[in-house]
Amino acid sequence: MRMYDIILKKRNGEVLSKEEINHFIDGYTKGSVPDYQAAALLMAIYFQKMDKEETAYLTEAMMNSGEVIDLSNIEGIKVDKHSTGGVGDKTTIALGPIVAACGVPVAKFSGRGLGHTGGTIDKLESIPGFSVDMTKEEFVNNVNNVKLAVGGQTANLAPADKKLYALRDVTTTVDNISLIAGSIMSKKLASGADAIVLDVKTGSGAFMQDIDDSFELAKEMVDIGINMGRNTVAVVTDMDQPLGYTIGNSLEVKEAIELLQGKGPKDLEELCITLGSYMLLLAQQVSSVDEGRVKIKEAIYSGKALETLKRFIVNQGGDVAYIENVDLLPKAKEVYPLKVTEDGYIHKIKADIVGMSALILGAGRDTKDSVIDLSVGIVLNKKVGDYVKKGEVLAYIHSNNIDRRNNAIEKLKTAYDIEKTKPSTKPLVFGIVTEKEIKRL
Amino acid sequence: MRMYDIILKKRNGEVLSKEEINHFIDGYTKGSVPDYQAAALLMAIYFQKMDKEETAYLTEAMMNSGEVIDLSNIEGIKVDKHSTGGVGDKTTIALGPIVAACGVPVAKFSGRGLGHTGGTIDKLESIPGFSVDMTKEEFVNNVNNVKLAVGGQTANLAPADKKLYALRDVTTTVDNISLIAGSIMSKKLASGADAIVLDVKTGSGAFMQDIDDSFELAKEMVDIGINMGRNTVAVVTDMDQPLGYTIGNSLEVKEAIELLQGKGPKDLEELCITLGSYMLLLAQQVSSVDEGRVKIKEAIYSGKALETLKRFIVNQGGDVAYIENVDLLPKAKEVYPLKVTEDGYIHKIKADIVGMSALILGAGRDTKDSVIDLSVGIVLNKKVGDYVKKGEVLAYIHSNNIDRRNNAIEKLKTAYDIEKTKPSTKPLVFGIVTEKEIKRL
Repeated sequence: MRMYDIILKKRNGEVLSKEEINHFIDGYTKGSVPDYQAAALLMAIYFQKMDKEETAYLTEAMMNSGEVIDLSNIEGIKVDKHSTGGVGDKTTIALGPIVAACGVPVAKFSGRGLGHTGGTIDKLESIPGFSVDMTKEEFVNNVNNVKLAVGGQTANLAPADKKLYALRDVTTTVDNISLIAGSIMSKKLASGADAIVLDVKTGSGAFMQDIDDSFELAKEMVDIGINMGRNTVAVVTDMDQPLGYTIGNSLEVKEAIELLQGKGPKDLEELCITLGSYMLLLAQQVSSVDEGRVKIKEAIYSGKALETLKRFIVNQGGDVAYIENVDLLPKAKEVYPLKVTEDGYIHKIKADIVGMSALILGAGRDTKDSVIDLSVGIVLNKKVGDYVKKGEVLAYIHSNNIDRRNNAIEKLKTAYDIEKTKPSTKPLVFGIVTEKEIKRL
Repeated sequence: MRMYDIILKKRNGEVLSKEEINHFIDGYTKGSVPDYQAAALLMAIYFQKMDKEETAYLTEAMMNSGEVIDLSNIEGIKVDKHSTGGVGDKTTIALGPIVAACGVPVAKFSGRGLGHTGGTIDKLESIPGFSVDMTKEEFVNNVNNVKLAVGGQTANLAPADKKLYALRDVTTTVDNISLIAGSIMSKKLASGADAIVLDVKTGSGAFMQDIDDSFELAKEMVDIGINMGRNTVAVVTDMDQPLGYTIGNSLEVKEAIELLQGKGPKDLEELCITLGSYMLLLAQQVSSVDEGRVKIKEAIYSGKALETLKRFIVNQGGDVAYIENVDLLPKAKEVYPLKVTEDGYIHKIKADIVGMSALILGAGRDTKDSVIDLSVGIVLNKKVGDYVKKGEVLAYIHSNNIDRRNNAIEKLKTAYDIEKTKPSTKPLVFGIVTEKEIKRL
């Protein structure tokens, strides 16, 4: 089998076989297929596309290029949740304890963040002592005991995807739906869950800005999951404004804890209920989504989910006092208000710009070696649809450095679109994609 | 300027600017643009094509990537002839002396061949003493004195094309008309001629098998030449069977000399007259093609062209006795007849297969380091349209090795298509492409 013939076949619009895709991925991972042939094939794929089967083979090959985690020592159906990434998205921190409290084992492997705020592990490290350093046995025992553990992602997770992604990034071959879906799902599948609930974000702060593209990506990923024998459901949700009110590591942890205290923002709570109910359904803990919703709400309002969070934090070395009193969490030196200069309705709070403003403050990583400031960030005071009067506070900037604060404010101002007329309301959840149907709400 | 943006622009179907194309070619030649980005761009060009202007800019940039030969010390309008390559094509050896005898300066730079037979220099080296080693001054003086000199191609001719061609070869991006035309013309233009006559071969033994593709390539190359200020004409000619009767180095030299003695095969003579008349026209030696044809025939049948060949060979160290008595040229040990096994008309002598048979005998180079056997080859006894009876000789195999001869015969047999019905006749010249028109004959 020659890479030349594989490129030619795809260039001519033919369908690649499983063996051909494996030859490409294996060879590229090992270095026997050079970058330039991989680049030519990626561009041919960009133009000629891949069908469902090819996409599944590609995903499987990338999954198998590194370590595939075996969670079979953990009792029950392991359901994972994955978000395609958004601004102010602290869902994982709240949702883990909620579904664990409902009896579903949550065995989560997270990475560090690159971009506007940190990843889940960065955020949890706002709690002193918390650590993801565990042996495999400890990890399994933790999940079996508390139903929840968060481990660090192995460096050897889908290395083919890591290498290919870097190549796509410099050859303008990122935006192909099969390659995007394969990239996400190869890592997810290698993480070993039995079933997966995907949160596909759409809007200004998301990877996909167009709603139709988002549904297409959702369908592609669900098909891959099903094809690989994992029950998979995708929820397409709004990311045109940040989720909840806070953006920044310790600020987001605080908001997630408030949610578990029954005092969370409505959009974040609704998202947790929706995603959580599907997780319970796939875990066969309930027989309908509606039954799931009832159970999730009960886990939140009974305080059971908060108890689970505490046990999980203690289990991994964290100081539970920081959960009981969120005021102990890292705090910025200064809180500065951004005030509105004209009356009107907020039409837009562009999530990508809010994210960049948080990055300017130091809440995220510019490069892999940047050091994150866990205390800084932005707390919104108003959201889309709110009426604001001149002089009212739009948002509070939590900062430790005046220059950064001033630069962040200049950026943040451009996120807002304020007009005289009332905006039409948009739903938080646009639809659900399952194996059998694409349901737009 | 970033290579990323250039790839993206072409991927999206936009037209690249001269600066962008220069950035790509300069960077790729120097190594600052990596292979994988060049490969991605080539594949994007394959799908999105390049327009006339982009193709001209690409050609110019590749031409300027190395040495551009200055022929301004040579008197008169220098006209070059270039063939896209065929089997049994000894035109250059005959045509050089013919047009030189008509007063047109011929300053030719040739390479060594790779494939079925050697290049022009390899073939001329059948004549003992002949050499292309000259200083620039000697080369110029030779052209001014004899009107004809053949030099060796500089290693620094269009290095961007050399590097890009090697990449296209392994990334399935060879067959794009702009890239093919740019590759040929960049080298031709760097060779310094004022005007160019192109012989675009079409058929089984040519780079282009389809007649429409051949006309398209011809038009593309003519447009590039005109765009770069060189008067350019292309003749589209048949390469469905070998040209003339001989394939192999000294065998081809012999046939070219016979042509200059007025005893050449009709197809080779007609091709020389057609190409030569256009060369005289572009050199402003005649005012019409018909006038050119008369002058070319006169140069052949008066013996003037043969005289010019002798002076040229002597000038470059060759032994003129080998021209005066072609039986002195290198000869193979054995001549073996391939006989026909059934009566019928010859419908096809597939030129590519004849070429491969000659390669098996040792007439060509498999790799750059192969040593050519100048004496071996094939002499056809019959051509397409001829009626043959069982037992008649189709071709003679000139060989120095029995194993090679047997293998060559097995291959050569498959070149023939013999049927009971008479084949329709095909013209040798399919048409002429000039700046203003595509004339199909």
